[in-house]
Parts: sequence; C-alpha cells; structure tokens
Amino acid sequence: MEQLEMYKKLAGEKAVEYIEDGMTIGLGSGSTVYWMMKKVSELVKDGLTIQGVPTSKRTEGWAKEFGIPLVDFSNVEKIDVAIDGADEIDSELQLAKGGGGSLVREKIVDILAEKFIVIADKTKLVKTLGKFPLPVEVVPFGYEVTAKRIANLGATPVLRMKDGKVFVSDNGNYILDCQFQAIEQPELLHEEIKGLVGVVETGLFVNMADIVIIGNEQGTEIITKNR
Amino acid sequence: MEQLEMYKKLAGEKAVEYIEDGMTIGLGSGSTVYWMMKKVSELVKDGLTIQGVPTSKRTEGWAKEFGIPLVDFSNVEKIDVAIDGADEIDSELQLAKGGGGSLVREKIVDILAEKFIVIADKTKLVKTLGKFPLPVEVVPFGYEVTAKRIANLGATPVLRMKDGKVFVSDNGNYILDCQFQAIEQPELLHEEIKGLVGVVETGLFVNMADIVIIGNEQGTEIITKNR
Repeated sequence: MEQLEMYKKLAGEKAVEYIEDGMTIGLGSGSTVYWMMKKVSELVKDGLTIQGVPTSKRTEGWAKEFGIPLVDFSNVEKIDVAIDGADEIDSELQLAKGGGGSLVREKIVDILAEKFIVIADKTKLVKTLGKFPLPVEVVPFGYEVTAKRIANLGATPVLRMKDGKVFVSDNGNYILDCQFQAIEQPELLHEEIKGLVGVVETGLFVNMADIVIIGNEQGTEIITKNR
Repeated sequence: MEQLEMYKKLAGEKAVEYIEDGMTIGLGSGSTVYWMMKKVSELVKDGLTIQGVPTSKRTEGWAKEFGIPLVDFSNVEKIDVAIDGADEIDSELQLAKGGGGSLVREKIVDILAEKFIVIADKTKLVKTLGKFPLPVEVVPFGYEVTAKRIANLGATPVLRMKDGKVFVSDNGNYILDCQFQAIEQPELLHEEIKGLVGVVETGLFVNMADIVIIGNEQGTEIITKNR
C-alpha cells in the first residue's frame, strides 16, 4: 500500500474507536472515510448495532456494499458522532472541504453531530488555509455574476467541470473553486461569501471540528481544541 | 376590473416610464409585473428596443407570449432597471418577497440592477414586515433540521406544498414559509437566516429598493428613499 493511503487507513480506523453501540453516525465522504467505513463494516458483522447517515451518493453506495445500516436523514433526531475527511486543516482546527463536491450535505450532517471527528493523512495539516482552491456551492442561475462577487473578495473562481461538462452537485448546484492567496480569517471569509445572493454554502467548516485524527509515520496523532 | 387589480395595473404601467430605449430590463414575477409587461409589449410593438431578463419561468412565458425580446442572463453585463413586485413593503422600503416561489432568481436579478423599482397595490404597504409568512428557500436534503434552526429564531416554518406535493422552486429547492410575529429588524434577521447551513436565500430584500410605485385610488404614489 502506498504510504499516503496507509496514513488515511490509520486515521480512518482510529476514528472507529469513538463509535459505540446504538449510535447514529454521520458518514462523511472521500478516500479516508472509505477506510473508516471498511472498519465499521467489520464491527457491524461482529454484532455492533449502529445506523449511518451518508453525506453523499458515493458514501451511500459504499454503505450498501459494506452492509452498514442506513437511516433516512428525515427520521434522524440527533447524530451522535460524525466522521468526515477534510482537504485542509489549520492550527485552529478550521477546515476547508468540498473537493469531492458534497460540501452541503457534509456540513448539514457534520454540524448536527454532538461530536464531529475529522480524519486525514498528515499532508492535510496546514498553517493557513487556502492553498487548495476553496469550493463554494452556488445556484446555477446567474453563477457568472456570483463568481464576480466572490472574485471581488480576492479570489479567482473557476467553475468546476467533470468529463467536459459542468459538474453538478448532489443538490443540483454548481461548484466554484475559488483560489485565494491565503485564508487568514476563515470565519470572516465564510460569512462574507455565504452572505452573497446565489451562494448556497462554502467549503469552510469553521468552529465545527471537535477532534482531528491525523495518520502519519508514527501511527495516529489526535488533536483536540477546547472552545 | 376589480379595484385591487386596477391598483396593480396603475403601478405596473407607471413603472414603464423609467424604461428607455436600449435598456436591459429585469422582469420580476407576479400579478403586478404582468401589467408592467403588458405595457412594455405595447411599446415594443411601437418600436422600443429593449431586452428583458426574466426572473421566473412564468415571466419568461409571458415575455414570449407578449413579444418582449429576452436575453440569456449569462450574456448580461449589467441590468439598467429591474421592476418587480413585493408581498410586503415597510416604511424603510425593506421588502418581503417570495410568495410566488421565485425569490432566488428575483434577488439575483434585482440586486444587479442599477435601479430597482418595486411595484405594488396599496395593500402591500405595512408598518412592519412579517404578517405574511416569510419565504425561505432551502436545500431539500435535511430541510427538517434547517426548519428547526429557523424555528429557533422565533418562527413557525411550514413546508410549502402545491397540489398535494412538496413545492419545488425553479432551482430545485424547497420553500419554508416562516411565520414570525413581526420582523422589526429585517437586515439582522436576513443575515441570521441566510447564515444557516441549508438555507439558500431568504425573501427579505433589504436595502435594495430604489423606488416604490404604489397603485391606489388616486392613481400612483411614488416613494423613494435616500441612502
């Protein structure tokens, strides 16, 4: 196994230790979440009773493939633990997410969780967010104008494409990948972008992460922050 | 003609006086806009050259029926004048809109206009917004949770239905009609609701209207506000 993949696997499997019998679990999206779900499926086979809330169609597919019971989000009163990946994690545990295009569903589920655990390989730790273009989900109608407004905040927005066509999110929206030089104030920037008409959600997950589990050459490192 | 309909007609037709040859016009939605468009179509037949940007599929249909030339929003650099209705207009010219379910497109177009003209019959003038439930457009995924968050701000949100099914906006989203007791601080409330994850846009159009044209028994009253 490639080293980076091993770090992801280590982080994903470690997170499963926070899952207890009877819990409702938010299942994030992405390649690190894949390893977490693999591990959860083993425990489910051994008798663990949980129900999962998927944050993307891809995650939903994995859950079905792995035999992880799912619950419809409309029937969920609370989520005990959500486990999700991130594209960038800064020293304040602020996150940039959305490379996979599922940021709205992820945020809706992650924000509802009593405990939100982020899993990632060590390359995702950064001093300052913003090296990776920030995904912003926008209403298709008038997205060009919305892009201009985001550009006025200091970014270069690029409409995400896939296979030669405009990428459409699970919610039927577009994604603008917005290159900022550096995101020094994630909370402020999130509020500015989210406030724009036409913007559905940003990939900045501010003041949300409770625990970050990093996979590295030593195994895993656990970072928490008292707020 | 019914009296209320006559007031709408008076306001709609008066607004056309602000349209000049060569302009790009934002065409709002609703029954008062209908009268404005009827009048515009007469001027177009007499040689006026304008292009319209429709804010709803219904408005687009009227434009085609009336022979008003349309332009694709993606090709629009600027909008000279937008003319749109409102459900409620307070003394500060703050608006509540969205009864027709097109609030996102309306706001995207109206906010871009150099001059935004609101047309309404006199029953739309209120001291304080909020008698009419405030429409909020939300992402379908997790709308129940989003509704609870809005309820925490003091509202009773109701999922809009149509013909026994959930109403779906032109953008594929749901509408929550949120009954507040009174909306004393529209700008603050808008920011609070818009900031919630899952919320696409609110029906509060704050600090947007330049001119309000009211149809009443005297004809029309024009209200402007210096900002």
